[in-house]
Amino acid sequence: MKIAIDGMGGDFAPSAVIAGCIEALSELDVDIIITGKKDAIEEELKKHTYDKNRIEVIGCSEVIDCNEEPVKAIRRKKDSSLAVALQLVKEKKADAMISAGSTGAFMAGATFIVGRIKGIDRPALAPIMPGKNGHFMIIDCGANADCKPNYLVQFAMMGKTYYEKVMNVSNPSVGLINIGAEEEKGNELTKAAHKLLKDAPVNFIGNVEPRDIPEGDTNVLVCDGFVGNTVLKLYEGAASTLLNMIKDEIMATTRGKMGGLILKPTFKGLKKKFDYKEVGGAPFLGVDGVCIKAHGSSDGKAFKNAIRQAKIFHDNKVIETIKEQIEKEIQKKEQ
Amino acid sequence: MKIAIDGMGGDFAPSAVIAGCIEALSELDVDIIITGKKDAIEEELKKHTYDKNRIEVIGCSEVIDCNEEPVKAIRRKKDSSLAVALQLVKEKKADAMISAGSTGAFMAGATFIVGRIKGIDRPALAPIMPGKNGHFMIIDCGANADCKPNYLVQFAMMGKTYYEKVMNVSNPSVGLINIGAEEEKGNELTKAAHKLLKDAPVNFIGNVEPRDIPEGDTNVLVCDGFVGNTVLKLYEGAASTLLNMIKDEIMATTRGKMGGLILKPTFKGLKKKFDYKEVGGAPFLGVDGVCIKAHGSSDGKAFKNAIRQAKIFHDNKVIETIKEQIEKEIQKKEQ
Repeated sequence: MKIAIDGMGGDFAPSAVIAGCIEALSELDVDIIITGKKDAIEEELKKHTYDKNRIEVIGCSEVIDCNEEPVKAIRRKKDSSLAVALQLVKEKKADAMISAGSTGAFMAGATFIVGRIKGIDRPALAPIMPGKNGHFMIIDCGANADCKPNYLVQFAMMGKTYYEKVMNVSNPSVGLINIGAEEEKGNELTKAAHKLLKDAPVNFIGNVEPRDIPEGDTNVLVCDGFVGNTVLKLYEGAASTLLNMIKDEIMATTRGKMGGLILKPTFKGLKKKFDYKEVGGAPFLGVDGVCIKAHGSSDGKAFKNAIRQAKIFHDNKVIETIKEQIEKEIQKKEQ
Repeated sequence: MKIAIDGMGGDFAPSAVIAGCIEALSELDVDIIITGKKDAIEEELKKHTYDKNRIEVIGCSEVIDCNEEPVKAIRRKKDSSLAVALQLVKEKKADAMISAGSTGAFMAGATFIVGRIKGIDRPALAPIMPGKNGHFMIIDCGANADCKPNYLVQFAMMGKTYYEKVMNVSNPSVGLINIGAEEEKGNELTKAAHKLLKDAPVNFIGNVEPRDIPEGDTNVLVCDGFVGNTVLKLYEGAASTLLNMIKDEIMATTRGKMGGLILKPTFKGLKKKFDYKEVGGAPFLGVDGVCIKAHGSSDGKAFKNAIRQAKIFHDNKVIETIKEQIEKEIQKKEQ
């Protein structure tokens, strides 16, 4: 298969992107197209030894910045590394694409250029997060700040399929993020979504209270993009602030420093457990092509893992399955 | 001043409630009315030595359970310890009330029995949370799952006044919890609320992204009750899960146990920093009386601190100031 990679996306582009591509070539049966500033990318490629038949570079004259208004940027910069990578998927010249650039431009571009799956109202960003007892997906994490109840049902169905096919969990549990365990709790959106989810073709286990999210006991957590983005960012922020506070306390006394030295492997183990680099990127589900948003601060390893993830996503026919299931639901409603 | 306390509210009632009342008597110039099962309360009081003129017990035949539907419970159980404590505030027989019982019944009861301040559309629950660089308030934390933009402006004004008068911070900073720093980011509610907050009589510093909440750099964080409750519960859950994970890792090896022993004072210091018992309870702002929701698992110390908080809340005329400011805003709009 062929994977298009936005060579200019992410804090450490293009060097981290290219390091990831080279690593992927040695581990995975994939060919790669890198889009972006031709000179910079080729300069970087020269530093590595690799099979030149397996990497193609497509030069682009533009780059989309993280500070640009996403919709405007994607409409205007047709020759940007991001837009060109998406165009390759649209034209089936690539089977998947990955970008670590602006999340907003990525989502807008994937929606406009690659296009929605028929029957899906709103595509959704669905990162996989680390929890105490296992990983979990949050869908949507920011593509749709305002949602209707039926969007959440579609998120649940897409999340379930991805989790089954890519994370290899059969009949994954699906929960609704809600303030209260009981069905009648919540806001207008969650109350209505709860009713619909009970009848949806997913293993719906009911409401999941925010307090229980970090335990990681539910595979797929459904919510609107405002709540999902809040959960994602607060979760990251709380973990990082708490670990920094512990570090500050440890460094404040000689006794603390000694204890910290002894516990270094413990903290390292924890950090690894929370390392997004292990998971790859966030799939953007609901568009008619494999589009993965890698973390902005991705290093080579994170890119390599995102490439592996794109391959599993593609090989296991996630999009085809989503299409079949949505089709079935539409037929069910028409009967 | 006289404070009414729901003697049956909380996981350790009535013993923790009474321990807190006794402690408060020795430190603060307050008189206390305890509502609830007369026998149980008097039995508990017998264990302590105190000035009997300063504690009155009002016997109630009912108790509201945490599992009861709040609105129904408060309407039906007129002789419950919670309803009677609220009634005392309504009839000005008490200057304040505290309960550690069902949050839903507390909020419904305070709204129905004590009543709203004229001009306030929706009262809001406003706990004070510990952050890295200081405490912060989240308003609303669950009273209003669905909000209109102007409710958030009223939350901001009430939160500002409380923070100024009770937390003793002059011109406290007010932020809007939002997914993105820019004004145009967010959902329909936050976009509209942002515009209104810019013109509100508060020190509005703009959007606060969820990632930055744990830093504790902004005094008052405004949001709808669904988002606020999510932030509150996830924040508590993430901290507790992470600390448990560290504990598990420490206990897993001999080296870890040794390091853990050395770092015991460090972790103890952190735990104290995150201890809700130090802060007291969550004020319910917007009702025409001093009503404080103590944490369900409050011990004696937490109750004593909630009593101190109620005294400052009352003595510093928070409600009177909120009334004046709302009145001013109404007049401004009428001009």
